[in-house]
Order: sequence, then structure tokens, then C-alpha cells
Amino acid sequence: MNYAPTNGHADATQPPPSTTTPTTLSYDQAGVNYDLIDPLKIAAQRAAASTASQLAHHGFSEILASRGESAYVVDVGPFYLASIVECLGTKTLVADEMARLTGVSRYDAIAQDTIAMAINDLITVGATPLVVQAYWAAGGSDWFGDAQRSQALVAGWKSACETCQVAWGGGETPALAGIVESGRVDLAASCTGLVNPKQRLSLGDKLGAGDAIVLLASSGIHANGLSLARKLVERLPQGYLTEVAPGLSYGDALLAPTTLYSPVTEALWKAGITPHYCANVTGHGWRKLLRHPAELSYRIHTLPSVPPVLTFIQQQARQDDREAYSTLNMGAGFALYVAAEDAQRCVEISRAQGIEAWVAGTVEAGPKCLDIEPLGIRWGGEDLQLR
Amino acid sequence: MNYAPTNGHADATQPPPSTTTPTTLSYDQAGVNYDLIDPLKIAAQRAAASTASQLAHHGFSEILASRGESAYVVDVGPFYLASIVECLGTKTLVADEMARLTGVSRYDAIAQDTIAMAINDLITVGATPLVVQAYWAAGGSDWFGDAQRSQALVAGWKSACETCQVAWGGGETPALAGIVESGRVDLAASCTGLVNPKQRLSLGDKLGAGDAIVLLASSGIHANGLSLARKLVERLPQGYLTEVAPGLSYGDALLAPTTLYSPVTEALWKAGITPHYCANVTGHGWRKLLRHPAELSYRIHTLPSVPPVLTFIQQQARQDDREAYSTLNMGAGFALYVAAEDAQRCVEISRAQGIEAWVAGTVEAGPKCLDIEPLGIRWGGEDLQLR
Repeated sequence: MNYAPTNGHADATQPPPSTTTPTTLSYDQAGVNYDLIDPLKIAAQRAAASTASQLAHHGFSEILASRGESAYVVDVGPFYLASIVECLGTKTLVADEMARLTGVSRYDAIAQDTIAMAINDLITVGATPLVVQAYWAAGGSDWFGDAQRSQALVAGWKSACETCQVAWGGGETPALAGIVESGRVDLAASCTGLVNPKQRLSLGDKLGAGDAIVLLASSGIHANGLSLARKLVERLPQGYLTEVAPGLSYGDALLAPTTLYSPVTEALWKAGITPHYCANVTGHGWRKLLRHPAELSYRIHTLPSVPPVLTFIQQQARQDDREAYSTLNMGAGFALYVAAEDAQRCVEISRAQGIEAWVAGTVEAGPKCLDIEPLGIRWGGEDLQLR
Repeated sequence: MNYAPTNGHADATQPPPSTTTPTTLSYDQAGVNYDLIDPLKIAAQRAAASTASQLAHHGFSEILASRGESAYVVDVGPFYLASIVECLGTKTLVADEMARLTGVSRYDAIAQDTIAMAINDLITVGATPLVVQAYWAAGGSDWFGDAQRSQALVAGWKSACETCQVAWGGGETPALAGIVESGRVDLAASCTGLVNPKQRLSLGDKLGAGDAIVLLASSGIHANGLSLARKLVERLPQGYLTEVAPGLSYGDALLAPTTLYSPVTEALWKAGITPHYCANVTGHGWRKLLRHPAELSYRIHTLPSVPPVLTFIQQQARQDDREAYSTLNMGAGFALYVAAEDAQRCVEISRAQGIEAWVAGTVEAGPKCLDIEPLGIRWGGEDLQLR
């Protein structure tokens, strides 16, 4: 990501602007303190921005509008180059505990989650992902000795690359005893892609009143909100084995792999549709729909169905809708802002890729805000501070 | 890196092929067990290689010879795209301990080390680095609250980007309590660049008998061999404060930031010199000079001067030259294989960039081996297994 505070990894949700009841479990309580992280992040943003001029030595230039967006974009002449590094977050802790409880490693799903964190951000700018590099930093050499887990990780990584039609270029498998905790692994992915042809760039300059908002279904919690989800386990008598739906444990439900959306964005391009803007719904939940800096109003008239695991988390954490939708994806993993006449075709193209979708709202002239009409929720621009 | 086993991060040195005395401290004893890591690495290599065909969906193709080299290269038409992700390793543990002992944070140097791990690998294929992404995964939010350390990290990262004329695109600053140890940070960098024009590609197809080997000076241990260096502290009565040279503590000497070599490779190109091959001397020490798969003999006639910290480590660990040169860079951080007539000019160009250099050897027809003549050391191709 591009130093948009708190975008892109599992622990990265700012305390939502909500009234809470004493039994509500919020992100504050889940243990991430942004007052400590933000000064460094702001210093890093400023220093990073100042290095853009270095590209002139090579005859290139940055696309300024990509700073603050989900991937960094450089004009290299015939096309734009987009790149990113993304951390999975703490979802491995759920997989580790479920492996202990069930004997089954779900690191195949974890691999897909990690790649999704990078791919789903990279495609928001209109890039086609081309190369993924793997970053698997373990707490010691012995982490790699668990053959079942290792094979699941490799198989899931390969499979996700194939789904996204990217080459797995290589990676790092360091053993970092003393830095990564024993028995744990820190997973991340970097991704490089091209915006090609250049008119695929979707940083929002074509976004405007009259556009439609198409929401693409999530598969569950994805990889954001896991600190909250893990904290919640303490309240459940059967812990991760508690059923969230008949035959579906909380742990297994959490481990549903994050949906990979690049097959949809590539299919859209082949069908002649260029989104005006895209938002990957990660940390901040639906507030992420307010990501673009333009003064525009977003009106949601149709809600996606909510995966059972998210309904369960909302109920168990005693969150009202305002808090739940400001923290979790609530069934919408990715948002496309497209010309109104393309909206229904976007839905059909997404469904053809096996991903449910809805024409869910409209973009209108007006002050920056998001109205989720079926729920009576409104957020203003001040409720999402990413730049 | 490109799954060349053990290249590129601090802990990544295989046990060198050497006879040891009972008091010798080897990498085996420093605690990294490659028997556990290698099966996963081989499985990952195979799976990664199988994904290359995915690029055909986009009209592109991989450069097969880059698999097994230090960066992955894709032909995207007008130029080649090179990308990489690299881990710093455990050098932060030295900086943490020295900060405790002296009150001074050297995370500015650590930042340069991290970027050097990525940049110095990326340039081996002939790429100009363009964009660096930062990966700073801390053991908790509070890690970022140390203002002196945070400012040093940001300042060092920015400065290294400027030295390498790359744009700092963005990054990740996750707080990973439960995965990264409390008070620690896992640092990595991803880097994307272009081989432009394509004739800059230096994967070794022009490497041949008659070429000269030019060695570029290291600044010290760089970021490889740190597990050994840290283990050694247990043998030193004054620990990190032991002097390795008058007024220079072991800890400070270890923290000399890794030399950034991209100013040299860029200056070479501007001077009309294209190396036939390059080797970044990291894990495996000088055995890395055997990296290219061709059947060629490498004869070293001139040794670089050895930084005091490496002489000290060799003495304290009671390593013979064979073991020291197979583990540490021993004064040579980067190797250029160039046409003989260009060799002296390479030295002058490197010196003009502030980096000492030597015309150190020659490439000859013959069986794959490296002769370090002044030391009477010979390694065969079987002493470096990277593919």
C-alpha cells in the first residue's frame, strides 16, 4: 500500500466513529494503538513523497494521484508501472490454532489471503498484476520442517498465482529467530504490474455524478478485522469450534480464503469496460467507499448478503450496524465505480467469474458522504482519513 | 531473491565446506538448519517455475535464465521488468543491543542495509532500480512510538533511496503482536526496476574466457553473517563494546551500513560499459563468485583489503581463510565480470563513486572452479549449490 494509514493488513482498522455499549468489543480494545503508529507513518509519507523527484534521473515520473491510493504508479513511457508490498497480518494465528484443534493445515487458504492483500490493492489503479514475490519469514528453521503446512502453503500460493495469471517470481524464506516468534511466520507479498494500455489507469479522474457503484461479494472476513475476531474467541465457550452455521465452525469460517478480484478486472477490460475508480474494502470496512478525495456523495440502495461469519462477529461483539460496517466488509469485498450504463454488465461479468455482484448504489453531486440507505447510516468525509 | 537457497538475508549462509577446529565457530553452530528449510524451498522453486506460463496470457514471457539469479526478469516488450523482495535478516538485533548500550539508534544504517539487500541484488541482472517499497513489521504498536528510532529509520530509508535514485513508493507498517516478538521489527524491502535498453541484461550469456573480475569494496560485514557475528559476542568479555580497532567498537563496526552499488552500475552504463555478469557477495561469501552456471574457471590474483571487523570475526571465531572466505565478504561486496579492456576503467568509475575497487582476477576456460591464488584456496562448482 501507499501509506494510506491502516489500509491493507489485518490489524489495520482505526477505531470506528460509533457509540458503543459497555459490552461492545471495538478495535480499540483489540489492541492496536494508532496514536503510536501514526507519527512514524506521517514522517514516512512525507519522506517517501520527497523521493519522487529521483525518477527524473531516469526520464520517468510518478503519477502523483497514486500517492494515497492503494498502489504506487510510475509513468515509464509506453505504460505505467505499478508496485506494492502487502502484509497478511495476523490471520496465521487463526490457522495455527485451528491446525492444533483439527490437525489440518489451512495454509493453502492463508497463501491465497496473502496474495489477495497485494493483488486486490494493485488492481485498484487499473494495473494487470504480472509478478508476485513471496515473503515468508519464520521464527526459526524448524517452522519449515512441518511438511503438511509447507506443502499447503506452496500449493495455495501457486494456485492463487494461477487464478490471477501472475508469475511467481521467487521470494525469501528467512529464519528469523529472535525477531519472529518461535513457531510463527510473518507472511507478505510484493506485486508488480503494468497499466497497459495507459487508458486503463483508474485513479478516479473520470469518477463523477451519475456513476454507479457495483459491489463484489466477499468470501467472509478476508484478512481484515482479525484482531477483533481473535479477541472475540475469548468470549466463546467452544472457542474456534463454535458453530456459526450448521456444520461450520467459527475457525473454519474465518479461514475462508480472501476472494481474488483480478479475474473480474481483467474480464471487464476485455469486455471494454474501464472502471472510473475502484476501492478494495479492507480496513475501515465500508468507509473505504469514501476513499477518493473528490467531493461526491455516494448513495447505497442495495445491500449485499452478509456472510454468516460476519453476522456472527457483529452479534457476538455486540456491534450496531454503524460499527460493523465501519470495521468489516459485511459482504462487499471490492467496489467498482463505473458508468451507469455499464453497471449491469459488470455484475454479469463478475458472476461469470464466479463472484456474486450487485448494482448497489449511485454517485451523486453533493458534499462528500456515504449514505447506506437501507441501514440509515451516513458517514462524512471526515470519517475516513487516509491521506 | 529468486529462491537461490540462502542468498540475500543475514542468516542465509550454508555451512561452508571446511575443516574446523573444536573452537571454531561455524554457521552450523550459529543455529540455522538448512536441512529443514531446503525441502520447502525446492518445492517453492518448482511451483514458482511452473507459473511462468501465466505471463503468456498477457503477451509476455519470463527470461528463463533469471530463475536462479538474484532477481526475476520478465520481457514486457520495450524493456525487461525486474523485481525482488528481500529480508534484512537479524542485523536489527545488533542495533537494538547497541542502542541499549549507547543510547544511540543506528536504524538509519539499518534502513540502508535493508534497501541494499534489495538494490544490490536487483542490479546484478542489469536493471536500473526505480521503486522501493518498505516493509516494517513490528511486534506491537509501541515499537513505532520510539521517536528517535523511528526518525532514524525514516531518514536512513530516504537517504538510501536518494543515493540509489529510486522513488520510495510506499509500504507497510503493520503491528504484528503474537507474530513478531515484542520490541522487535522485521524489515524487508521490495524493489522494481527496468532493464532498459534491453542490451543491459547481464545474465551471463556474454561471460567468457578472457574476461576480468573487478571486485568492489565492502564497508564491513554488510547484512550477511550476522548470526555468526552475534553468536561470537558471547565469547567477548566486553561484548559489543570490545574494540576491533582503536576507538571502534565491535557493535559500531558491525553496524557500518551496507554499501549501495547501484551508483556504480549506473555510472558504468553511462560510460558505455555493460558488465557480462555480476555477483552480489552475500551469503556464501566468495563462493558466490561461482554463481553463474557456465563451466568456467575464475582465478583471483589480487585480494581486497579486509575491513577490521571481518579480520576480528575471523580471528575470534578461529576460522581459517577457507572458512572465512566461504562465509564472509572479506572486503569484496560486489563482483563485476567485464571485458578485460574495460576492467581498469571500471575501477576508476567505481572510485569516482567513492567505492574502492580492484582488478582482482580473470575468467579462464576450464572446469568450474574458483582459485584464490594468494590464499591457496580452491573451490569447485559443487561448493555452491544455488539452483
